[in-house]
Amino acid sequence: MSEVTMEKIVELCKRRGFIFPGSEIYGGMANTWDFGPLGVELKNNIKQAWWRKFVQQRSDVVGLESALIMNPKVWQASGHVDHFHDELIECKECHGRFRSDEAEKENECPLCGAKGSWTEPAKFNTMFKTFVGPKEEEADTAYLRPETAQGMFVDWPLVAQTSRQRLPFGVAQIGKAFRNEITPGNFIFRTREFEQMEIEYYIKAEEWEEHFGMWFKQMHEWLEDCGVDMDRVHDHEIPDGERAHYSKRTVDIEFEWPFGRKELYGLAYRGDYDLKLHADASGRDFTYTDPNTGEKFLPHVIEPSFGLERTLLAVLLSAYKEEDVGGEQRTVLRLPSSLAPYQVAVLPLSRKDELTKIAEPLAQDLRKSLRCDYDVTQSIGKRYRRQDEIGTPYCVTVDFDSIEDGQATVRERDSMKQERMAISDISGYLEDKFCNNC
Amino acid sequence: MSEVTMEKIVELCKRRGFIFPGSEIYGGMANTWDFGPLGVELKNNIKQAWWRKFVQQRSDVVGLESALIMNPKVWQASGHVDHFHDELIECKECHGRFRSDEAEKENECPLCGAKGSWTEPAKFNTMFKTFVGPKEEEADTAYLRPETAQGMFVDWPLVAQTSRQRLPFGVAQIGKAFRNEITPGNFIFRTREFEQMEIEYYIKAEEWEEHFGMWFKQMHEWLEDCGVDMDRVHDHEIPDGERAHYSKRTVDIEFEWPFGRKELYGLAYRGDYDLKLHADASGRDFTYTDPNTGEKFLPHVIEPSFGLERTLLAVLLSAYKEEDVGGEQRTVLRLPSSLAPYQVAVLPLSRKDELTKIAEPLAQDLRKSLRCDYDVTQSIGKRYRRQDEIGTPYCVTVDFDSIEDGQATVRERDSMKQERMAISDISGYLEDKFCNNC
Repeated sequence: MSEVTMEKIVELCKRRGFIFPGSEIYGGMANTWDFGPLGVELKNNIKQAWWRKFVQQRSDVVGLESALIMNPKVWQASGHVDHFHDELIECKECHGRFRSDEAEKENECPLCGAKGSWTEPAKFNTMFKTFVGPKEEEADTAYLRPETAQGMFVDWPLVAQTSRQRLPFGVAQIGKAFRNEITPGNFIFRTREFEQMEIEYYIKAEEWEEHFGMWFKQMHEWLEDCGVDMDRVHDHEIPDGERAHYSKRTVDIEFEWPFGRKELYGLAYRGDYDLKLHADASGRDFTYTDPNTGEKFLPHVIEPSFGLERTLLAVLLSAYKEEDVGGEQRTVLRLPSSLAPYQVAVLPLSRKDELTKIAEPLAQDLRKSLRCDYDVTQSIGKRYRRQDEIGTPYCVTVDFDSIEDGQATVRERDSMKQERMAISDISGYLEDKFCNNC
Repeated sequence: MSEVTMEKIVELCKRRGFIFPGSEIYGGMANTWDFGPLGVELKNNIKQAWWRKFVQQRSDVVGLESALIMNPKVWQASGHVDHFHDELIECKECHGRFRSDEAEKENECPLCGAKGSWTEPAKFNTMFKTFVGPKEEEADTAYLRPETAQGMFVDWPLVAQTSRQRLPFGVAQIGKAFRNEITPGNFIFRTREFEQMEIEYYIKAEEWEEHFGMWFKQMHEWLEDCGVDMDRVHDHEIPDGERAHYSKRTVDIEFEWPFGRKELYGLAYRGDYDLKLHADASGRDFTYTDPNTGEKFLPHVIEPSFGLERTLLAVLLSAYKEEDVGGEQRTVLRLPSSLAPYQVAVLPLSRKDELTKIAEPLAQDLRKSLRCDYDVTQSIGKRYRRQDEIGTPYCVTVDFDSIEDGQATVRERDSMKQERMAISDISGYLEDKFCNNC
């Protein structure tokens, strides 16, 4: 089996409609990406599986969706206005600008090829700025949020009060964040516009180790749910001196990407740092009152943080297989059926009316409860290969015998085993399969 | 029954955790709103129901999710850079700025109260600007997209090629859009940051009337699915001379809001206007080749456009009822069960261990397939009222008899009828109810 390269994944994603370069007809746009018909299904399935697992199926986590444009005081209080910087240096020849930590590794300037003579590093705030309101020339500057987390901190008093939850409990959010990265790249690994899935889990300070351990386990369980290759997942304990000053423990969960071992997720114990900042800056009461003891205190926070696009990329890299099938090669995405864009494809052997009038109502029936594709183009062998390549767990082939015996062939993606069964049984057969899988 | 006012809806939304003012602890932020624990569930349920109905359950619509920040050439080609303006006038006394069409109705300046002496109207582009890349002072200006539609137009060649769909077929997208409105307001009706659900349905020109009629019907059917009060829904046919020059027919679907009859959705036949603009500006081939005749042509477009927050507001306004129950008043949200934040709540009569050890596993079991709340606070009557007020279709009460007979009481929200049944049957009973409803 040959190696999975980024080139293969990028090519498959574009050719099959998972992921396109953003604004492609205009030459693209600064490493932005659009999710095509299959990509948006895969992405939505990941989001929904995450929400089910971490919000809906738990009694101790509630959801939130805060605005992308928040009051700038949020980013002043959080320190982002003053400290969310990259260091930037400029090539004196071509005036290209680069992150100083990356450019220092280079002997010559990446743009002009000249042996680098660089300016001194200058600070560059990586929040996107915009202007809100009608007075553009003297407008209030606002920022596109660089993380979802502050929404859960700022809304803590309102959520604590209205949800009537007791500690320990968490607030979860999925949503866009924006960072004006100097050097985005590696496909969807580092982009200026991305989605985060984050939980702020509020606890009593003395219980932090227990809850940290619980979330550490949950994050690994989630990766297994997604079919991520656990041999390529590594825990990187951030040592003393490298952690943020307020954090007693931080673990990066890393993945072996084709471009190296780098961060996939993060898990941090943040103490009461964030709530304290906003309590002080806003003058609001952020304390929690213990219903048993009456004691008032600021909760501490455990923060499990998941990148959505990185999850999607790790899922694709783990699912992608090239296999020999009777001397021919097939590419197959071994996606969990809960995440596959389509769960089933209905394939009439030909375009003839007598097959269509069986296959179309079957597809329409399956669509009531399943994500179902319908494909009549090219040979059945090519259609199987296409469905393998987009990760569809089951194909149902309607052939000329179906007209007589009311049966069709159900083919399973991974084993390629084929089973003939009554068309009226197929919906129930598949629903059972998927229910057991999720 | 008394009237549903905006004040009542806003108050309920804040008190119960549906919708909070954005950045509330810092005094809010320019009419932005955060969706709290219940609001995010309701919003997600609307999005998922829309996606199921218009994408997954149809054979002729595929999804897309394009970037929020697109290449600025998109907005030059579409005309947004040159023409997406509001007219702005300034009060010479207080220098407050207002939309000219709104301020002209006022005798005095809304801010300072002076009898208005206004500047001449000036044009104000309502796209949010930002700067992409590390050269901030001379950066490329980019825009936050003011609509999702252009993503479906710009990606047409890639989607048409990779999805292998044939005309007629549509491309659907749900996502954020941003407009720097001079005067946002009416709660979530008009905000600067909002979500759209849009379909661009590509057709042969000569079939436009048939497809327009199909979408008109589908949009009304969707509103009925959502439980929107159809007596308050009106179709406003945009007359000749008021439509965009390229549109042969446009219908606004309006709703009677407490603040007046205003637009909810729009349905427009846009001809080949949009694809032609981008084909010309990019130099790319946007034509479609008819697989039967070999004829090459630009598809025409029918655009059904749905505002997500307006849908949510119309759903809340339609569902909100105040009823007399034995001399007491109850407030109830008669939400369709497919949209309700929780489908069921488990309520042990007291906090006693012998009830908890029955009620908690039941809730955990129900959570496997349903959105389930669990509430042990206050009297059972207050808890019923609370669940009514957030629209939960069923409550399950575990009482002291449950310990002996293994039964619990299932209460239905709208009829308030109570039925006693074996605890082991409840999950199946509810799943049947919800399956028939959706």
